Amino acid sequence: MEIEKASILIGVQNTSRAAEKRRKVLAFIREKGEISRGDLAAAFSLDKKTVSNLVEELFAESLIASAGFRDSSAGRRQELLTLNGAHSNFIGIDLGGTHIIGVLTDLNCSLLDRVFFEIRPGLPVEIILDQMKAICRKLTTSETATAPVRCIGICAPGFINAATGTSIMAENIPGWQDVHLREIFEKEFDRPVRIEDSSRASALAEKWLGEGRGRADCMIADLGYGIGMAIIVNGLLLRGAGNKAGEIGHTIVVPDGPPCTCGNFGCLEAVASGRAIARDAAAAIEAGRAELLKGLTHGRAESVTAQDVAIAASMGDPFATDLLRSAGECAGRALANAVNIVNPSILILGGGLIGTNRIIEESVARSLAAHCMRGIFEDLELRVSKLGIDGSALGCSILAAAEVLGPA
Amino acid sequence: MEIEKASILIGVQNTSRAAEKRRKVLAFIREKGEISRGDLAAAFSLDKKTVSNLVEELFAESLIASAGFRDSSAGRRQELLTLNGAHSNFIGIDLGGTHIIGVLTDLNCSLLDRVFFEIRPGLPVEIILDQMKAICRKLTTSETATAPVRCIGICAPGFINAATGTSIMAENIPGWQDVHLREIFEKEFDRPVRIEDSSRASALAEKWLGEGRGRADCMIADLGYGIGMAIIVNGLLLRGAGNKAGEIGHTIVVPDGPPCTCGNFGCLEAVASGRAIARDAAAAIEAGRAELLKGLTHGRAESVTAQDVAIAASMGDPFATDLLRSAGECAGRALANAVNIVNPSILILGGGLIGTNRIIEESVARSLAAHCMRGIFEDLELRVSKLGIDGSALGCSILAAAEVLGPA
Repeated sequence: MEIEKASILIGVQNTSRAAEKRRKVLAFIREKGEISRGDLAAAFSLDKKTVSNLVEELFAESLIASAGFRDSSAGRRQELLTLNGAHSNFIGIDLGGTHIIGVLTDLNCSLLDRVFFEIRPGLPVEIILDQMKAICRKLTTSETATAPVRCIGICAPGFINAATGTSIMAENIPGWQDVHLREIFEKEFDRPVRIEDSSRASALAEKWLGEGRGRADCMIADLGYGIGMAIIVNGLLLRGAGNKAGEIGHTIVVPDGPPCTCGNFGCLEAVASGRAIARDAAAAIEAGRAELLKGLTHGRAESVTAQDVAIAASMGDPFATDLLRSAGECAGRALANAVNIVNPSILILGGGLIGTNRIIEESVARSLAAHCMRGIFEDLELRVSKLGIDGSALGCSILAAAEVLGPA
Repeated sequence: MEIEKASILIGVQNTSRAAEKRRKVLAFIREKGEISRGDLAAAFSLDKKTVSNLVEELFAESLIASAGFRDSSAGRRQELLTLNGAHSNFIGIDLGGTHIIGVLTDLNCSLLDRVFFEIRPGLPVEIILDQMKAICRKLTTSETATAPVRCIGICAPGFINAATGTSIMAENIPGWQDVHLREIFEKEFDRPVRIEDSSRASALAEKWLGEGRGRADCMIADLGYGIGMAIIVNGLLLRGAGNKAGEIGHTIVVPDGPPCTCGNFGCLEAVASGRAIARDAAAAIEAGRAELLKGLTHGRAESVTAQDVAIAASMGDPFATDLLRSAGECAGRALANAVNIVNPSILILGGGLIGTNRIIEESVARSLAAHCMRGIFEDLELRVSKLGIDGSALGCSILAAAEVLGPA
């Protein structure tokens, strides 16, 4: 009886160890892009026979494909192995404050299709959900698909509960509370659905495809209509006790400053987000202090966006330039505080406010340099995301690919 | 040849796996205090024979001792095992801004002896080092020692390089730069020496002996003459890319506020540390705005300390009370920022400013409640350290005990 229990235990351990080994091997192939059997043997200290069995198994499941040959130093031709992109497809959907982006990718995370919807702040929850479903439907029937969609990843701003698949709240979407995204989408599309926070989704994309590749520690700032952050420590996302880590948007940068959607005052999001920039621009238009912006928006102050401000600034408008500079300065101060606490080796700037206009980016960089402790700033590389506004959506499809490849 | 290499590899792997198992077993015994052989078997899924061999080995090395017997549910008497405190002794030395504390502990981290030196801010480096050596000498020859001192742990404020054993700089000690503490103390005392940052040392003490026991994630704030912080994520100290994580003292809480020792303006340390409180109190005495403090310090404004301010506040002095309240408010704001970013399950307040006077503690708590995001505050337990000002010194002796028990 005791021996039986022990051998079952050992059996379970062996199975989970084998699954873990397999996950690591798939992650290794994904990271390297193309590898030989010899590379596998060396990386995992495996003998030829074990590698051969493992590779057979992965071929049999169509998880890997041949990617040609290379000559080894010994002069022998080595077959190169790569993930088989056409094994399965995945959908990633990013619900942002001003847009919904959907992407269709393959197992290699190559982009196959993309849908972009602009949304107006203040839309009812039901309409937003309908738009998300429409995007998802469009991608499941995409003509550029290379395989059936295996899993759907969705991210939303604000707090989420990954275990129940619920988007708990998103301050930037009025009425958005306890939305059971997983349940809704699993019912509608009959596929597994995974839910993540927008900033953490973009961090996954940076880690797999972007500036965070090969970094065990990094910080990703998501500066857009809202402001979020994700931190990777020892190669893992810092999630926090209640899955709520990364709320840099609600750290206070201007004591007793303007009111924030969270109920507090002077939060970073209340002074430097796309939403705050639009709010200040609207007030300036109404007060007659922003003629160019007034013209750009046909005098409809309430319709002005941070993008309009960026356009005015790039046309040399001093009010718009000051507004973006001040937002960048505040963001840099909050990020410097976070950097002083975490001491990351790299900070990646992403989100809608970055990349469209260099003014914010430059003033964030200046403010960071001024407010980080000198020794800590010396450890820091500052990078701008190359994934653009698709980062979070790509992160969601990576989250979905974990259904096949194991935890991202 | 290939087979030989493989078997050597397997040998190395087995050795390191065995060492790791042993470390985990010792950590388990330390955490639980007293365990039976059956507890060990259950916790590590080991069979009777393996447990028996392991226990034999630990007894043979005097690492464990018998702690009596308890009756099992089956009615059999089970021998209880505990770490053998008298296996070896350790010294921990905490160099603070206003004190040096040395402790002598045994393998169980029981306190055997303690030396406390008050130091005046601004002492020359050589004199500080002589005082540290004097304390160390006193403890190595302590009459209450139960075994030879096996290793010495030392912590200093500011940046340290644990690998080289160097204290890189401590802004609060003029002239303190690149002090090769390990080299100096290993030469003087002919024993291994380990170096850590003060806040991380106190975090180790909280994790082993204090409020952080059994917590995989926690945040420890060190509010004293300087202000530091340590963060534990997934059970491990967050060290940062350059070993500099935790510099909450240099996050900015009052934009364009008073100058800080780091060269910046409005850092938490410049407005809420013991040093800042003393500075503001001295200015108030000189300006004739603090009569009670003037009396307490015999009119020598430059000699006033944060402790004097705490005494005046507990006597009901409104100036002193306001000063402490404002420091607590600022500290709470900076801590709320850190909590919003990390979302820990527990925040432990320690350091010289905590415990001596409830005013700071209460205003930190109020400020935290006001400035944390509601959902994140709900996840947070706020605790006051029970280790008092000895926390960092105890953490250093834990660091030293790692010489025997493996990484803390």
